[in-house]
Amino acid sequence: MNTSNEYFVVDANLHDDLVRRAYLQRGYSEEEAADAARFCHSASRHGIRTHNALKAIHLDDLFGSKVGQWVPGAGIEVLPSRFAAAEIWDGHKKLGQAVAYKAMQRCMELADQFGIGMVSVDNATHYLWGGGYVIDSALKGYIAYTNCTSATSEVVPFGGKTPTMGTNPHSWAFPTQEAVGFPIVIDWATSSVAMGRVQQFAREGRELAPGWAVDAEGKPTTDPNKATALLPFGAHKGYGLGLIDEIYAALIGGSLPSIRGTNRGPANEKRGSTFFFQCIHPDAMRGHDYASARSQSENLKACLKDILGHGNEACILPGQLEAEAAKLTDVHGGLLFTRAEIEGFAHIQQELGEPAWVINNFRSVTL
Amino acid sequence: MNTSNEYFVVDANLHDDLVRRAYLQRGYSEEEAADAARFCHSASRHGIRTHNALKAIHLDDLFGSKVGQWVPGAGIEVLPSRFAAAEIWDGHKKLGQAVAYKAMQRCMELADQFGIGMVSVDNATHYLWGGGYVIDSALKGYIAYTNCTSATSEVVPFGGKTPTMGTNPHSWAFPTQEAVGFPIVIDWATSSVAMGRVQQFAREGRELAPGWAVDAEGKPTTDPNKATALLPFGAHKGYGLGLIDEIYAALIGGSLPSIRGTNRGPANEKRGSTFFFQCIHPDAMRGHDYASARSQSENLKACLKDILGHGNEACILPGQLEAEAAKLTDVHGGLLFTRAEIEGFAHIQQELGEPAWVINNFRSVTL
Repeated sequence: MNTSNEYFVVDANLHDDLVRRAYLQRGYSEEEAADAARFCHSASRHGIRTHNALKAIHLDDLFGSKVGQWVPGAGIEVLPSRFAAAEIWDGHKKLGQAVAYKAMQRCMELADQFGIGMVSVDNATHYLWGGGYVIDSALKGYIAYTNCTSATSEVVPFGGKTPTMGTNPHSWAFPTQEAVGFPIVIDWATSSVAMGRVQQFAREGRELAPGWAVDAEGKPTTDPNKATALLPFGAHKGYGLGLIDEIYAALIGGSLPSIRGTNRGPANEKRGSTFFFQCIHPDAMRGHDYASARSQSENLKACLKDILGHGNEACILPGQLEAEAAKLTDVHGGLLFTRAEIEGFAHIQQELGEPAWVINNFRSVTL
Repeated sequence: MNTSNEYFVVDANLHDDLVRRAYLQRGYSEEEAADAARFCHSASRHGIRTHNALKAIHLDDLFGSKVGQWVPGAGIEVLPSRFAAAEIWDGHKKLGQAVAYKAMQRCMELADQFGIGMVSVDNATHYLWGGGYVIDSALKGYIAYTNCTSATSEVVPFGGKTPTMGTNPHSWAFPTQEAVGFPIVIDWATSSVAMGRVQQFAREGRELAPGWAVDAEGKPTTDPNKATALLPFGAHKGYGLGLIDEIYAALIGGSLPSIRGTNRGPANEKRGSTFFFQCIHPDAMRGHDYASARSQSENLKACLKDILGHGNEACILPGQLEAEAAKLTDVHGGLLFTRAEIEGFAHIQQELGEPAWVINNFRSVTL
C-alpha cells in the first residue's frame, strides 16, 4: 500500500511508447498495441491505479498471450444480423482493449443513426476497466454503458455458499461536462469489494467489514484468512445486478460461470467472457418542455446543482475523483506514478531488454 | 402488518371490474380504466402488496385526478425525432399505467425492427410498480428495462444531509421462462428501504438497521423517530444508481428534484416525473458459438443452473417470489387479498355508492 503522497511525473509519450512496444513484442499488431497504450494512458491519467499498464501486462501474462489464451492479431467477425441498431461480434479472443474501443465507437455511430445502438461481443477477453470506455464516449457526447462477465467467478449468489458468479462490473457514463465540468461515471463491481482487498487485509492482519465475504461453508466471516469468496454488495440488490451480466453473457455465448477462466470442466465447454456495449444519443431523449425555458443541457445542470445544493455541497459526484486525477495529470504535465509503480515497470523493460527507469530521472511531486 | 397467513380469494373479474369503474368514475377513459385494472390485477397476481389497487387509488387521491394533477383522457404526444429506434413522448400527465403499457409496447415493436428500442416520456405521472411492465415484456420474449424518478425526493445523496433525490427505482426483466420457468426480474428502489418501512418501525417501536436513514443533520440514525430521510442502498454504489434516474429525467425534461411532487419553488418550474423504457430483442444478441452446440436458450438455462448449483441450490432468483405468487393465484382461481386489504376496498366501493365486500362471501385459504 502506498502510504506516501509522493508521485513521479512520467512523460506520457515515454509511457505510451513503452506500453506499445511491450504489446508489439508479445505479438500484438500495431493497432492493438496502440489501443493498449491508449487504454493504459487513460487509466493512469484518471488515477485508476488498479488497472494501469502494470495490471494490463500482468493479465496478459496470466490469462493472455503468454498462456496462449488471447490471440494477438485476431480479427473481429461481425455476425449477420437482421437488426440495424444492434451488432453481434465474435471477438476471436482479440485484445480486449482494442475490441472495446472499436465496439464503443460502433455504438456511437449506431446512436448517431438510430438514437440508440448496441454491440454484443462473444469470445471476448478482458477489457480491464469499463470506466475507460464509457468516459471516452461520454466526453464525445454520448450516454454510454458497458457490462462484462469477470474472468473468474469469485462471488457467491445471495443466500449461497459457492462462488459461481463473477465480480461482474457495470459502467455508465453521462455527457455532463457542460453541467458539472466532467462526465459523471458510475462504474463498479457488483461484489462488496475486490478479492485483492481481502488479500490485502489478510497481509495487514485487519478484520474484514461485515458483508464482504463468506467462508468455505458459505457463512459470513470477517476473518480474511477464512474468507474464500465474496458477497454481492447490497445483499439481494447487488446479487441481481451481478446476475444481469451473467444473463447477458449467457445470451451472447458466454461459458458456464463456474468454470470461466479456469481449466476445469468438460472439454467441449467454453471458458471465456463476453462484453456488452450500448450508447444513446442525448438528442434521442430530448423533450420539448424544460422548465423556465431551459435547454436540455441547462436543465441537466440545474437538476444536478439542485441535488448537490441545500446542504449537500460537500457531496461528490461519481466520476469526480477520476476527473480530478486527470486534471492533476494535466497540471503536472505527465502521468503520475508511485515509487512502487515506477519500479514495477522494470518487469516490462526487462522483457524488452532495456534498462529499468531510474527513479531520480523523474520529477517528483507531493499531492 | 399482516401477521396471519389467511388470504381471501377474489374473482379476478370482480376485482378488475371494480377497479375499472373506480377509474371511470374519476373521469378516466375506458382505455385508461382498462389499463389501470390490468395493472392492479398484475400487481396483486404477483403478490405485490405495496402497489395494488388500494395504493393505485390512494395515489390518485393524493397526487392524481383528485387534486387536478393527473389529466384523465389526456393524449400522448409523440415528439418529432430524427432517430428511428428512439421515441420521445410528452405524456401530458396521462395516467401512468396507460402510458407505461403503451411505451413498453412501442419499445417491443422497435426492438423487433432495430434489435433495441427506447421510449422516453416527459410530463409523466406515476406508474406504481416498474416490475409489472418489464415482467409483461419479458413474458413476450424481450429483455426489458425501465426507470423513473419518484414522485417525491426522500433520499440523501451519499455524504449529504438533505433529501434531494427520489427513491428512484430500476426494473429489469429477462425472458428466462424456458430456462427457469419464469422471467428473472430485478426490480427495486435505490434507497435502502421505503419511507413506509421507517414509519412502520416507528409505530412498532423498533430500531432501524444501520445504513437506512439519517436525521435532520444528515447524521446516520437508527431511531425511526429521528429519521428524516433515507440513505441510498450500498453507499456510493446505490447513490450512483439513483443518480442515473435523475440524469435521465433531467435530460428528458424532469423537474428540479428537490421540488418534485411538492408545491414549493418558483411558479415557472415543473413538479413532475419522467419515465424511461427500453427493450432488446434476444435475437439481437444471439452469438454463433455456444458451448456443446447449445442453443441460446439452452445456454441461458445451463448458465443459470450452474450459478444455482454447487451448493447454491437454496438460493432464489430475483422474480421467483413474484412467479410463485402468480402460481398461487392460478391454483386458487382468484386474486389473493388479506382481510385488511378486503376491508380497504370499502373506500373504493363507498365512492361508487356500492356496498362494501362482505368478507364471508370470499373463500379463504391459508398459505
